[in-house]
Amino acid sequence: MNYNKLFEKIYQSLGNTENLGQVASYIPELKNVNPHKFGVHLTTLNDKHYSFGDSDEKFSIQSIAKVLALVLAYQLEDEKLWERVGVEPSGTPFNSLVQLEYDKGIPRNPLINAGALVISDILVGHFEDPKKHFIEFVRKVSGISGIDYSSRIADSEKSTGYTNAALANLMKSFGNIRNDIDTVLDFYFSLCSIEMTCRELSRTFLFLADYGVCPYSKERMISTSKSKRINAIMQLCGFYDEAGEFSFKVGLPGKSGVGGGIIAIHPNKYSIAVWSPRLNAKGNSILGMKFLELFTTATKASIF
Amino acid sequence: MNYNKLFEKIYQSLGNTENLGQVASYIPELKNVNPHKFGVHLTTLNDKHYSFGDSDEKFSIQSIAKVLALVLAYQLEDEKLWERVGVEPSGTPFNSLVQLEYDKGIPRNPLINAGALVISDILVGHFEDPKKHFIEFVRKVSGISGIDYSSRIADSEKSTGYTNAALANLMKSFGNIRNDIDTVLDFYFSLCSIEMTCRELSRTFLFLADYGVCPYSKERMISTSKSKRINAIMQLCGFYDEAGEFSFKVGLPGKSGVGGGIIAIHPNKYSIAVWSPRLNAKGNSILGMKFLELFTTATKASIF
Amino acid sequence: MNYNKLFEKIYQSLGNTENLGQVASYIPELKNVNPHKFGVHLTTLNDKHYSFGDSDEKFSIQSIAKVLALVLAYQLEDEKLWERVGVEPSGTPFNSLVQLEYDKGIPRNPLINAGALVISDILVGHFEDPKKHFIEFVRKVSGISGIDYSSRIADSEKSTGYTNAALANLMKSFGNIRNDIDTVLDFYFSLCSIEMTCRELSRTFLFLADYGVCPYSKERMISTSKSKRINAIMQLCGFYDEAGEFSFKVGLPGKSGVGGGIIAIHPNKYSIAVWSPRLNAKGNSILGMKFLELFTTATKASIF
Amino acid sequence: MNYNKLFEKIYQSLGNTENLGQVASYIPELKNVNPHKFGVHLTTLNDKHYSFGDSDEKFSIQSIAKVLALVLAYQLEDEKLWERVGVEPSGTPFNSLVQLEYDKGIPRNPLINAGALVISDILVGHFEDPKKHFIEFVRKVSGISGIDYSSRIADSEKSTGYTNAALANLMKSFGNIRNDIDTVLDFYFSLCSIEMTCRELSRTFLFLADYGVCPYSKERMISTSKSKRINAIMQLCGFYDEAGEFSFKVGLPGKSGVGGGIIAIHPNKYSIAVWSPRLNAKGNSILGMKFLELFTTATKASIF
Repeated sequence: MNYNKLFEKIYQSLGNTENLGQVASYIPELKNVNPHKFGVHLTTLNDKHYSFGDSDEKFSIQSIAKVLALVLAYQLEDEKLWERVGVEPSGTPFNSLVQLEYDKGIPRNPLINAGALVISDILVGHFEDPKKHFIEFVRKVSGISGIDYSSRIADSEKSTGYTNAALANLMKSFGNIRNDIDTVLDFYFSLCSIEMTCRELSRTFLFLADYGVCPYSKERMISTSKSKRINAIMQLCGFYDEAGEFSFKVGLPGKSGVGGGIIAIHPNKYSIAVWSPRLNAKGNSILGMKFLELFTTATKASIF
Repeated sequence: MNYNKLFEKIYQSLGNTENLGQVASYIPELKNVNPHKFGVHLTTLNDKHYSFGDSDEKFSIQSIAKVLALVLAYQLEDEKLWERVGVEPSGTPFNSLVQLEYDKGIPRNPLINAGALVISDILVGHFEDPKKHFIEFVRKVSGISGIDYSSRIADSEKSTGYTNAALANLMKSFGNIRNDIDTVLDFYFSLCSIEMTCRELSRTFLFLADYGVCPYSKERMISTSKSKRINAIMQLCGFYDEAGEFSFKVGLPGKSGVGGGIIAIHPNKYSIAVWSPRLNAKGNSILGMKFLELFTTATKASIF
Repeated sequence: MNYNKLFEKIYQSLGNTENLGQVASYIPELKNVNPHKFGVHLTTLNDKHYSFGDSDEKFSIQSIAKVLALVLAYQLEDEKLWERVGVEPSGTPFNSLVQLEYDKGIPRNPLINAGALVISDILVGHFEDPKKHFIEFVRKVSGISGIDYSSRIADSEKSTGYTNAALANLMKSFGNIRNDIDTVLDFYFSLCSIEMTCRELSRTFLFLADYGVCPYSKERMISTSKSKRINAIMQLCGFYDEAGEFSFKVGLPGKSGVGGGIIAIHPNKYSIAVWSPRLNAKGNSILGMKFLELFTTATKASIF
Repeated sequence: MNYNKLFEKIYQSLGNTENLGQVASYIPELKNVNPHKFGVHLTTLNDKHYSFGDSDEKFSIQSIAKVLALVLAYQLEDEKLWERVGVEPSGTPFNSLVQLEYDKGIPRNPLINAGALVISDILVGHFEDPKKHFIEFVRKVSGISGIDYSSRIADSEKSTGYTNAALANLMKSFGNIRNDIDTVLDFYFSLCSIEMTCRELSRTFLFLADYGVCPYSKERMISTSKSKRINAIMQLCGFYDEAGEFSFKVGLPGKSGVGGGIIAIHPNKYSIAVWSPRLNAKGNSILGMKFLELFTTATKASIF
């Protein structure tokens, strides 16, 4: 099936979207993005490519990178990982301290900020130069050597990252951050600053549609079982306080970022990346979610 | 594939399970169940049957029936339904009032007690004799005329159902229960008292593996889209505060009840019912969950 | 000191108060009160009387009556009472279920709704005809035989009292309501329906300024120690989520009701009742609080 | 009245207290205190002194110092202060982040950790050398030049102060900490490290029993109105989650610290300091509270 036309048709059916949502403003650098950008790219397991719009323009993938950090940490720690972070949806806004205090410093899952900080702490503890090691891992997964952090974005986030510092300190008080807090935060802000195009993002996540193997390199990044489990975690926890909404309407595991990007996985078939910077009140891309809903409806794609 | 042998092999691999968990005790009548019962039944779309153990013994399906009430209410109300109940995981124990108060009387999803009470209120408002109408609906879905409420269980639950009365009153104070509270509670307790065998339970839920059509009668119970959405809701909200754990380990949409039953759906393939009365602290059947985890691992079945 | 002139002067200094706050609307009957009513009455231990405005008009004392129920229950149960209700401020809005669930059905204090329901349950368990017994107790304390319940107000409150029914059911689920819920609620709604004038209210509470003895009858209603402790509870818990504000600005123990009344106690000196029906967002009389603040400032009265 | 004998008699009536409570352990340096120390000192407005036990031994006054920081900040900011911190009891354990998040970074009152951090931020913003300025203020209030910080205690607290760092960062994210976080924390840890004897502590707080005037120097430290209001805040918020218990049993405004000290004020009469290092689960000195309860009962002292 040729999705290019479908992409265009769906995009046009969205109608006038001028006034929908707002670009993320809590990080100064993100405010400068053109709100009307829209891109989508789908990569199939047998290397078919379909795209539309600004699909070759770099954007800040933000929280989507948390999935990649989780993949690396899960590889390193195996099931021991779950002693320090849960797999349950959080049921509260994405940076809430309430649940964390209630659960004695154990984040509900690895995709909320607190959980990603624990994952960051694990990676910081494993590697001499964790930032270097991690970006090389991302390049290997994606097969794209040009992927990198944006120090501009990372610095911007650091300058206002008090909530994340609060989370890290709270977890440290419970013993669930083990390395120096500033080092962990520095890694975390870099992690969230990675930039990709829709094409690159789709390609990077393709191994999760192929049960842990990168289809282009045939290299196994993670076991089949772990790959399925990461998809399950995305399904339940990938959209802050809207994971149910996304499952209900789109029916695929996925992850969003406040840069406006969304990655979704159709196991055994493809990965699809969408980007539109305007967010709803929950922090998810409005057009990105709507587009994927119409796409999976039109193609009858849904894991359910 | 013949699953009968696999069922036996998995059951034996569970080893000595004498001391695992406890039979539900909050309803007097449930305490009397033999804790060592174990049954499983799988029905495929093309009417293959596999079973093991006490699969033909009736047990109280309890909260599993909430899915059937949801199916009926969704049919009646369409997307308007979601004005009165959400689709997000709750993130808190299954009968918590906290979230409900915070969200002004709108339950997080239709499978927690509060949500099922709203669904009950909707059904009570639609039918002259809602209990009669509902059990006939269940008989039609299952094609089994002998399925019925247990008035013994319903009365037992009613005698201690103060938490549910608290939930109903709280929602009434927010205007989200519209009928007489006692009538709604009476319906709700009956709903939870339905008894089935594993074989019957598996057959009843088979239409959700066939995108809304009962495979034996070829009758459509609900649209394809609604069927997928109900599976998505089960995936995210079907196991109280362990939905993530179940998704992570079993990888299928499903629903548990404090009677020790679990139903799981493999879309386009089969439905499988397990029963073992001993529960963990979260209210889910310990052996039931473990059995399904080993089964989906052995058969590489997982929607992810 | 002659307070009559001071009362008038303070009242006039309040200026144009036309648009301040709103009459309680959650009970239908309370909505009909003239919002511009204002009365005050002060009674000293040696039977001096000072008043201003509508001080001889009956109004619904609402939650103020909870203090009298507490006095009676404390007399009956002694320190055993505190096994079922705490003495700590609640820190959350006056009818919240959150704290109650967290604390396993033990209300934070006897002056929030949940606590007053436990007190009601205790009184219901002690007397054959609790409503009759209680109103006779109030008449004895006040020395005024004409004080009575308003069945109109009680019925009105009952018709919308779902939050209180939720509280009672929740506590029953924890075993902290022991009698029939409907009987307890019926007593509670009657309790809150008592009507008094400012003059009567001031006289009724005078025994708490005299360490437990009714100054006019010389009869001891409660021990000195218990009298002080009830004043301490009023100081910390008497104004819903504004107890700190009232202590900070007025500096006397007191209790408010959503009918717009406030009683305040100056130990060893006097009791003062104010009434103005318009409430702030916390449910306390705006002019009543302001008047008392100006009064204690002008007279340098404050226990601190 | 000569209290010396009463002190001894009350102390002996406490009986065998060997196994009551535990010395604070969350700060390494506090663990080394001899748990069997006990001291008390009462100073009257007309300079009478009564004492018992280890009343001339220095101990860490910890949170008691927060009242002095509040006095200084209130002097500087007047009623503007209350835009950044409330006057309501917190209703939750003393270092909870929950309430703070709910209230958008505004602490419930100035005596919980979060509130004292805001007060610290205010003082840091006012003075070039805030630590020097503050200790000089304490020396002036007390008239004792030898009072000082313990850098040993401050360093110890800093090494484990992650919860306070979490609070400060969270409030910074809401804009309610305005200076550099590390500077504010450094001041806060110094503030809590001040050491006094019971005699010194009693003398230091005597001005709050004399409506803001130091009786020995006749110097006014704060207005009468502000002095009363600080007493009101102590009454409602001075004992973490046991303010009600203390008011109920002791009936005087006061403040405790995890070093085991308690100061209590009898307005217009005296201030009394008690010290016993073993704490209950709420963080208050067990023998200190018990001693004061028996003392105010024996002397019929209570503001209520």
